[in-house]
Amino acid sequence: MSDPTRAEIEVEVRYAETDQMGVVHHANYLVWFELARTRLCSLSGYHYSDIEGLGYLLMVTGAELNYRRSAHYGDTVLVSCWIDRLGSRGLNFAYEVVFDGQVLVTGKTRHVWVEVAKNRPCCIPEPLREPFARLASRSEQ
Amino acid sequence: MSDPTRAEIEVEVRYAETDQMGVVHHANYLVWFELARTRLCSLSGYHYSDIEGLGYLLMVTGAELNYRRSAHYGDTVLVSCWIDRLGSRGLNFAYEVVFDGQVLVTGKTRHVWVEVAKNRPCCIPEPLREPFARLASRSEQ
Amino acid sequence: MSDPTRAEIEVEVRYAETDQMGVVHHANYLVWFELARTRLCSLSGYHYSDIEGLGYLLMVTGAELNYRRSAHYGDTVLVSCWIDRLGSRGLNFAYEVVFDGQVLVTGKTRHVWVEVAKNRPCCIPEPLREPFARLASRSEQ
Amino acid sequence: MSDPTRAEIEVEVRYAETDQMGVVHHANYLVWFELARTRLCSLSGYHYSDIEGLGYLLMVTGAELNYRRSAHYGDTVLVSCWIDRLGSRGLNFAYEVVFDGQVLVTGKTRHVWVEVAKNRPCCIPEPLREPFARLASRSEQ
Repeated sequence: MSDPTRAEIEVEVRYAETDQMGVVHHANYLVWFELARTRLCSLSGYHYSDIEGLGYLLMVTGAELNYRRSAHYGDTVLVSCWIDRLGSRGLNFAYEVVFDGQVLVTGKTRHVWVEVAKNRPCCIPEPLREPFARLASRSEQ
Repeated sequence: MSDPTRAEIEVEVRYAETDQMGVVHHANYLVWFELARTRLCSLSGYHYSDIEGLGYLLMVTGAELNYRRSAHYGDTVLVSCWIDRLGSRGLNFAYEVVFDGQVLVTGKTRHVWVEVAKNRPCCIPEPLREPFARLASRSEQ
Repeated sequence: MSDPTRAEIEVEVRYAETDQMGVVHHANYLVWFELARTRLCSLSGYHYSDIEGLGYLLMVTGAELNYRRSAHYGDTVLVSCWIDRLGSRGLNFAYEVVFDGQVLVTGKTRHVWVEVAKNRPCCIPEPLREPFARLASRSEQ
Repeated sequence: MSDPTRAEIEVEVRYAETDQMGVVHHANYLVWFELARTRLCSLSGYHYSDIEGLGYLLMVTGAELNYRRSAHYGDTVLVSCWIDRLGSRGLNFAYEVVFDGQVLVTGKTRHVWVEVAKNRPCCIPEPLREPFARLASRSEQ
């Protein structure tokens, strides 16, 4: 039923996330993206904290956000995440925030794999190669 | 089944909520408390945004937190909220954050009713009197 | 001495801004950008809260960030902001975060003018036309 | 001239720190307290990151806040911090947030020393004993 290459989470807007314009402050969407990315990673069979446990990081090297409509306190929005591009040394995630059937915000983040012990970029860790290829299968079609 | 005077929500710890100690930063618990308080308010039949819509606020006048154990990225904690004291012009909420059967953090917040148009403290708004009395019934026993 | 078309502020990294990687969480840079944008706006002679007081908003419609190096707790970074493009109905700001002579993060945000009462996009408010043209003079050269 | 047992910092309110009530969200004061605590610690001759470098933490075990007035976007508030109680295994800090001569918020935080390697409470690290005694000298009078 559910798409195995896409994570979708519900996020209830917190009062603290609003600003004096009466809408969600625009920086919070990066935090919601991350929450959906965590869910997507766990679809690989590895929670992101397991990946850190293996000694690797997915360091953020870039982000872009397009804001079309605002989320409000009390809304429960849907945040989706999928792999947009899978490279040998990094990958891009794409995101969509939807409320009431309307797209509020879309975005992308770029990441590189980093081996913590050496503090250096690296190839995708071997145990993750296959699971992430599966996660990315849609975007490679 | 569920206690009608107590709200309990699940909160999945966000990466952004951790700090360089590797645990949830202590300020975030106030945000989680608020999320549970929102849920408790909605048990009254009025979402907190409805209360603001009526022209009233529950202004925070005090908070206290006791930190016993830390929450970590990847944990899904339970945050409970109930009314600890119901007065004519304000009320106190109590909170508990639990993970894996262990209490991590407890706390209280104090609030007064404010009529927005006059920017002044006031009595509990008439339509909320009965619903909040019901919510507080446990603590009055 | 100082460039009248560029705001530069010092930001001391807060412990709460770090995450469990031991560096500043990537969402915080949008907040720092905004702080530098506030300073730039005030160089126009209007604090951004004055602009809101006039009944207008600079709504964020897009953002992009490029992360090269990380800021750490204890660092005091320099955040610069300038107008990158000035249009009749909106403008883009550009940003740079520097520590110890090295660029950590760069970014841009896109904005449109909104008239609050009508909740609609509008032209730049008349009183701001000249001051913002001056602020943008560098980028028009 | 300046009191060697009290840190006072200026904090410019950030737009992102406001909420839809149009004032600073109450959780942010804990973050400002921490910023002032960092400054106070550095008056000991040790930046808090140096203390972490020695292998110790000042873990927060409790906090209380009293909110009297609100801070607003555009305000630059003064946040003060001093040692309220110095014990052999922990200490309490006190705080005051002032704007325009009026006290907005006061608070306290309780802390214990933790030796990171053992993940256990400990006595105040030897090199900090004398500097912190000096910092606390006022409160011991």
